[in-house]
Amino acid sequence: MKSAEIKEQIMFYDTDCGGVVSNIAYLRFVEKARSALFEKWGMSFDEIASTLLFPVVARTEIDYLRPAKLGDWLIVRARVARFEKVRIHCDFELLPASSCLDPEHCFARASQQVVLVQMPSGRPRRIPPEWFES
Amino acid sequence: MKSAEIKEQIMFYDTDCGGVVSNIAYLRFVEKARSALFEKWGMSFDEIASTLLFPVVARTEIDYLRPAKLGDWLIVRARVARFEKVRIHCDFELLPASSCLDPEHCFARASQQVVLVQMPSGRPRRIPPEWFES
Amino acid sequence: MKSAEIKEQIMFYDTDCGGVVSNIAYLRFVEKARSALFEKWGMSFDEIASTLLFPVVARTEIDYLRPAKLGDWLIVRARVARFEKVRIHCDFELLPASSCLDPEHCFARASQQVVLVQMPSGRPRRIPPEWFES
Amino acid sequence: MKSAEIKEQIMFYDTDCGGVVSNIAYLRFVEKARSALFEKWGMSFDEIASTLLFPVVARTEIDYLRPAKLGDWLIVRARVARFEKVRIHCDFELLPASSCLDPEHCFARASQQVVLVQMPSGRPRRIPPEWFES
Repeated sequence: MKSAEIKEQIMFYDTDCGGVVSNIAYLRFVEKARSALFEKWGMSFDEIASTLLFPVVARTEIDYLRPAKLGDWLIVRARVARFEKVRIHCDFELLPASSCLDPEHCFARASQQVVLVQMPSGRPRRIPPEWFES
Repeated sequence: MKSAEIKEQIMFYDTDCGGVVSNIAYLRFVEKARSALFEKWGMSFDEIASTLLFPVVARTEIDYLRPAKLGDWLIVRARVARFEKVRIHCDFELLPASSCLDPEHCFARASQQVVLVQMPSGRPRRIPPEWFES
Repeated sequence: MKSAEIKEQIMFYDTDCGGVVSNIAYLRFVEKARSALFEKWGMSFDEIASTLLFPVVARTEIDYLRPAKLGDWLIVRARVARFEKVRIHCDFELLPASSCLDPEHCFARASQQVVLVQMPSGRPRRIPPEWFES
Repeated sequence: MKSAEIKEQIMFYDTDCGGVVSNIAYLRFVEKARSALFEKWGMSFDEIASTLLFPVVARTEIDYLRPAKLGDWLIVRARVARFEKVRIHCDFELLPASSCLDPEHCFARASQQVVLVQMPSGRPRRIPPEWFES
């Protein structure tokens, strides 16, 4: 199954006055990793713009395990967990870059279900069968 | 069990180039409703600033059901689903204000688990027993 | 000249780990006030969606004067400063709601230049002459 | 005078339903470049966390010249324009990575005035004299 990885540093705008990263900011990191994952099937931003076939998030689950702080470097690992007819299940691990990527030090774990939606009709489309095999 | 409600209008910055509200933006609306809910136990922002007891999101689940668009008015209804010793489970419905709040027209449904964390030690604190009864 | 006013409370996601509101978050409040201002000329979100004539920010200036904090209520006052052929100059004052709106207590002052852009061509359009008179 | 450069790709969450990058999202790119610039004086995030001396934005100006789109790669170039006793003036150019960094193709140009603020007192501090010379 395909996987992808991105690296990001925590900026001031990712944190809140609790002193650590805002729960909402992690979803931006997840989206960046998901975009890298979908590019592996040729679903780049250019392709999306020309085909108007959009990856749309239908469900998100995220567990916040340890707070990340200003300046921390995160590795986000995205992989496909499984396919349904019109849904792709993706898993994400958000890890400190400094931890040798030991899952024990995970900042957060997330999963998302993504549907391919043809615009402007808004109709969901079947996952291309060649995606299952790759 | 306590509940709260807020009303918000979709701004340009809530949408993305797919033409509808970004999956991430809904989490801001959820946070606004959650803040209104916690205020009902006297956990206002002033109180948080003076006690340094912070409500911290430990888990989020959200199902995106129908896309909201620029200019739509949303009602977000927050309620407590149940208490554990150190976790509060909250449910959220994001509804179009124009739908007479018919659950069939829901934009999204979410739930969050919240922990009370004492800063600067970072220790979780028991949910005050009087919260269970109110 | 037209003016508009909105009221907002500072949420966790508006702040950063410096303990006060992020410089970027204020621009969301400015946008909310600008939308209220443009609605006074009939340029509501529904109207934008049907005409595809978009208000586009061409320039922003903002001075940060006093930090706002979690839970503070802000009043944002928007007004038109002047019109050019294809630009509208808007001024904004971001005031604590608790200050009796005394300009001495201003959190921030901003101005923006807005152009009306016809999509999908991307052409700027002249400001409707009736806007000058109202 | 010191300078720094960062590279970013436009994500869905950076765009709005006008089809291009939201005016607010550019400020995140500016902040990332500014952080890279300040690190050149040893003002890394670790250093900020241990000294509690924060770089605070006192003023932002930004001109939006050409819209960036989903998937575009941006180079942001940050440099110091000049120092005052307690203010650093920084300039930013946001360029398409594909343009050979020709200033004619600039997406946006910005400048910011930054003050060094000692927390928790909130007092502004003089710019260290060695910064002027470097």
